[in-house]
Amino acid sequence: MAQLLVLYNQPADPAAFDRYYFETHVPLAKKIPGVRSYVVNSGPANMVTGSISPHLIAEVEFDSMEALQAAMASPEGQAAAADVANFAQAGVTLLVFETRRL
Amino acid sequence: MAQLLVLYNQPADPAAFDRYYFETHVPLAKKIPGVRSYVVNSGPANMVTGSISPHLIAEVEFDSMEALQAAMASPEGQAAAADVANFAQAGVTLLVFETRRL
Repeated sequence: MAQLLVLYNQPADPAAFDRYYFETHVPLAKKIPGVRSYVVNSGPANMVTGSISPHLIAEVEFDSMEALQAAMASPEGQAAAADVANFAQAGVTLLVFETRRL
Repeated sequence: MAQLLVLYNQPADPAAFDRYYFETHVPLAKKIPGVRSYVVNSGPANMVTGSISPHLIAEVEFDSMEALQAAMASPEGQAAAADVANFAQAGVTLLVFETRRL
């Protein structure tokens, strides 16, 4: 499997961020081909220790890195990626990796 | 479900880090009661955009936040947490949250 891990920084207006994210961005992201699972934090992400304290965490799984790359290059992937600029002005970290179950 | 998301900063010696992580830390972590799944990146975590570029990402799932908190408070959880100081000198971010599948 492969995963897209998205960590959104704390927005200036969390309620507006959440409204846009769930009403507009999620429907766009769910159109991306090959998404096997899409998980977000419900409630706050509490930082126990460390250097970042994201507002929203999204974990999107694909069958493979090839499927992930094809998905991101698709028109639906490009539309979802372009939409991020509409609500993530506070910054976002996007990490991509193959996964292994221990 | 609830998740413990662990992001380890780039270590000075990645090979030594990986050896310790997989040979010593994983066996300790797998003794923690209530772990439902334990996923790590295999191969590099590529930063597409953002402010952090972790060496290792671990996602550990539990049935609930109560189960996660009980697990971390257990002797096995305390032993795994104490072990982190033995290999994560470069720093680590630990985030805890309830999850929702979209």
